[in-house]
Amino acid sequence: MSSTLSTTDPRTGVRSDTGIEATSDEAVDAIVEQALGAAEQLGQHDRAWRADLLDALADALEERRAELVATAEAETGLTPVRLNGELTRTVFQFRLFGQAVREGGYLEAAIDHAGETPMGPQPDVRRMLVPIGPVAVFGSSNFPFAFSVPGGDTASALAAGNPVIAKAHSAHPLTSRACFEAMRDGVARAGGPAGTIGIVFGQAAGSRLVAHEGVAAVGFTGSLGAAEHLRAIIERRPRPIPFYGELQSVNPLIITEEALRVRSEAIATGLAGSITGSAGQLCTKPGVAFVPAGERAARFATQLVSAVGAATPGVLLNDRVVRSFRAAERELEQAGSVESLLGTGGDGAETAEGFAVDARVLRVHAADLSPEHTVEAFGPLVLVVEYDDTDQLLAALRTVPDSLTATLHLEDADQSAVAGILPQLAAAAGRIVFNGYPTGVRVSWAQHHGGPWPATNSFHTSVGITAIRRFLRPLAWQNAPTALLPTELRDEYRGIPRRVDGVLETASAE
Amino acid sequence: MSSTLSTTDPRTGVRSDTGIEATSDEAVDAIVEQALGAAEQLGQHDRAWRADLLDALADALEERRAELVATAEAETGLTPVRLNGELTRTVFQFRLFGQAVREGGYLEAAIDHAGETPMGPQPDVRRMLVPIGPVAVFGSSNFPFAFSVPGGDTASALAAGNPVIAKAHSAHPLTSRACFEAMRDGVARAGGPAGTIGIVFGQAAGSRLVAHEGVAAVGFTGSLGAAEHLRAIIERRPRPIPFYGELQSVNPLIITEEALRVRSEAIATGLAGSITGSAGQLCTKPGVAFVPAGERAARFATQLVSAVGAATPGVLLNDRVVRSFRAAERELEQAGSVESLLGTGGDGAETAEGFAVDARVLRVHAADLSPEHTVEAFGPLVLVVEYDDTDQLLAALRTVPDSLTATLHLEDADQSAVAGILPQLAAAAGRIVFNGYPTGVRVSWAQHHGGPWPATNSFHTSVGITAIRRFLRPLAWQNAPTALLPTELRDEYRGIPRRVDGVLETASAE
Repeated sequence: MSSTLSTTDPRTGVRSDTGIEATSDEAVDAIVEQALGAAEQLGQHDRAWRADLLDALADALEERRAELVATAEAETGLTPVRLNGELTRTVFQFRLFGQAVREGGYLEAAIDHAGETPMGPQPDVRRMLVPIGPVAVFGSSNFPFAFSVPGGDTASALAAGNPVIAKAHSAHPLTSRACFEAMRDGVARAGGPAGTIGIVFGQAAGSRLVAHEGVAAVGFTGSLGAAEHLRAIIERRPRPIPFYGELQSVNPLIITEEALRVRSEAIATGLAGSITGSAGQLCTKPGVAFVPAGERAARFATQLVSAVGAATPGVLLNDRVVRSFRAAERELEQAGSVESLLGTGGDGAETAEGFAVDARVLRVHAADLSPEHTVEAFGPLVLVVEYDDTDQLLAALRTVPDSLTATLHLEDADQSAVAGILPQLAAAAGRIVFNGYPTGVRVSWAQHHGGPWPATNSFHTSVGITAIRRFLRPLAWQNAPTALLPTELRDEYRGIPRRVDGVLETASAE
Repeated sequence: MSSTLSTTDPRTGVRSDTGIEATSDEAVDAIVEQALGAAEQLGQHDRAWRADLLDALADALEERRAELVATAEAETGLTPVRLNGELTRTVFQFRLFGQAVREGGYLEAAIDHAGETPMGPQPDVRRMLVPIGPVAVFGSSNFPFAFSVPGGDTASALAAGNPVIAKAHSAHPLTSRACFEAMRDGVARAGGPAGTIGIVFGQAAGSRLVAHEGVAAVGFTGSLGAAEHLRAIIERRPRPIPFYGELQSVNPLIITEEALRVRSEAIATGLAGSITGSAGQLCTKPGVAFVPAGERAARFATQLVSAVGAATPGVLLNDRVVRSFRAAERELEQAGSVESLLGTGGDGAETAEGFAVDARVLRVHAADLSPEHTVEAFGPLVLVVEYDDTDQLLAALRTVPDSLTATLHLEDADQSAVAGILPQLAAAAGRIVFNGYPTGVRVSWAQHHGGPWPATNSFHTSVGITAIRRFLRPLAWQNAPTALLPTELRDEYRGIPRRVDGVLETASAE
């Protein structure tokens, strides 16, 4: 059995050899050992240095833009426009984490001076967050940059002060390697230890990585099935570690009667873009759209079919995505009372001519909705669900698995009416989008890209600054001599926000 | 089989019937349903109301102090002085969480206004933490108040806005019920829904609680074995939930040559108090003390034996603690090269005359230290480990399981010498104590009571204000109309600290 990895161009279905060998067990162990060494060395640098490192990584990726985009295009079939945008976002992300590291609020520094309490005199206690150690990152096929080797998990783990070992995605090994090489060069230029970034190739290497006692946490973006495989390995470890998985999402979108009356055409156009962009292969793609039943629903369906049909067809990322999309499509079509409004299902034999698929619009009435209708179809497909009234809508929403997002299109006049819907949406999603579309996740301080299980399996985000928290743990110092405290916890230091004796203080201008 | 629970006075070993029946499956389900209803109702109250609720719970417990302490004394054998102190701490804890709820920083509120970015125009995104739903709390035997029904897990889960269902501890069912009744009355007085606090009795009821789909998280303080039992139930749930366990801890304490020279007697006295207080049944009790070998070590051992021997003997909490302590004691004595300096092991047959045990001081040389020497002995026992030099100390420390705390006794002249030890202590503990003792955990903003596995299984604390974070999840609002935003996320609101466009702002004085 050859251990050389192949790659496939999804536009043609042509497979070629990469010349990359699967990483051996011994090599995985050596990479983890190197990362453990790097963890110690990184701990000797200050935050300013680490912020500069993040900037250096941004620069290194930016410099290789043309090469990275071309490589990713051939491995993912995503368009250069989309890939350039994604790389811009990836570079921006490193710089934004650099800003957060400089600002220092993420350390959650707190100082309680010694003093009298109802329990008698109490010692001086100081707390802040510290890095946890090497982080393994498993990226997704649909974001070869922003959720893969140089993606948000990597950037947030590095920002926290940890080395990262990425598992190269089997659908884009060349892109993974190119991104790794760019980052490796960036680390060298910043004077960081070589073990700051590592990469392993092949499924066996990924499994060994997750089982390795030197790995402190796993960041994962992908399918529930792959996540279960890795979680089973983690459960067999003598020492358990956190597994932060972003798993799947149906992303319900709800249109009120009034919004449909006022903006039917605009919503149909916007929704079509959100369904067909990146060939529907986004974890935030709205998979189910709830529309008030009646004449306007019929008109909306026509508008939606027209807009979806007019979109440029895309290709799916790889044969596994094709198979999974086809399976979901079949399950939906065979679920009761579903009507097809656009497109025809295939038989999964597209691999010979590339992975192009038809965009699909399906329809069902809310009264007929069952869990078989609300499976995730990772591709250009939406199920329109017509509802008669709010009670029926709420009951139907309960059949949708908890999601990363829930979207509500409403008019000002609806605000009191939807107050009854909002708590249910909030309980079942990580982000509520108003009068917009859930695709296109802003990378910012306030972002939350997460949600109740099965959307994710943690109370954390994988996008935005607070993603750092996953890769830090608190440490407290009791009655420590000043010289043995981290700089940030010394009384005289004022460079970051801190909570002192319970009162939050912002940083002083220097 | 009778389903009535018994209770045992550890001072006499006399068991008596409580008249309390184990909670039936149907009753557990009804209690969870009531909690789910309460979760919705609690969501309609504001933070000021919830802070008042926490104060009302503090008042309700304080009013029944005499009854609670007497009940707990008969079930735990802990002294009235200790139990009064613990109840004071428990009451203080509710009030401190009330302050934190009023202050609002724990919400981590953030606002990113819409604006231009390198990725084009981006929407308005706002984020804060929201309650997760009913929390199950499993308390420990050794803190019938502060880590049991009205303890830190309960207070932090309520502070976060969640209902709590406590599993009554089998070793103090009457205390559990009395605390529950006090809190239930406090909730009623504050006008809260009845389902805000629930309680279940019996192991089967606890298992059913953890398996119930309505429960959103579990807080646990206890043994690794009991934790594994509950975790196995959680792993079989269709929908996984977080399990926050505080499990075990050996708490190494290290004395430098210089500290031993200057303060031998004082450290021996302080350490003896830390080992024998509450009969050594504290998760932060120092179990292993590292002392530089030589003449001074011999003198220190004599001083420690004298101080430990002079301490008032205590009784262990229950027959399970006795059995577990005896097993650890035997394992330690049978591990290689261990010398007994004080006390003799028993045969576990104390139950007829109450659960009194001898305090123990054992000794071994660091060169002989193996994992068999570093098991947790939950009771009045310490193993003195003599070390020849820093390298030997560091190697010996690696045989100690990661702990809640690590303690270092040093003099000013040692500060540069211990710089090589600190990173290893920091990697293996949640709190580093300087020139003190790890028992007596301050309840404050900066506290961290946690640590790497097997001390706990999360990156969170179970003591101090930040314990709230375990029972909250982030939720983001994108382009939300102001009227549909939580008050705390509206532009004009200034009552809590918020991060606005990346800049942390403190609350304005009103």
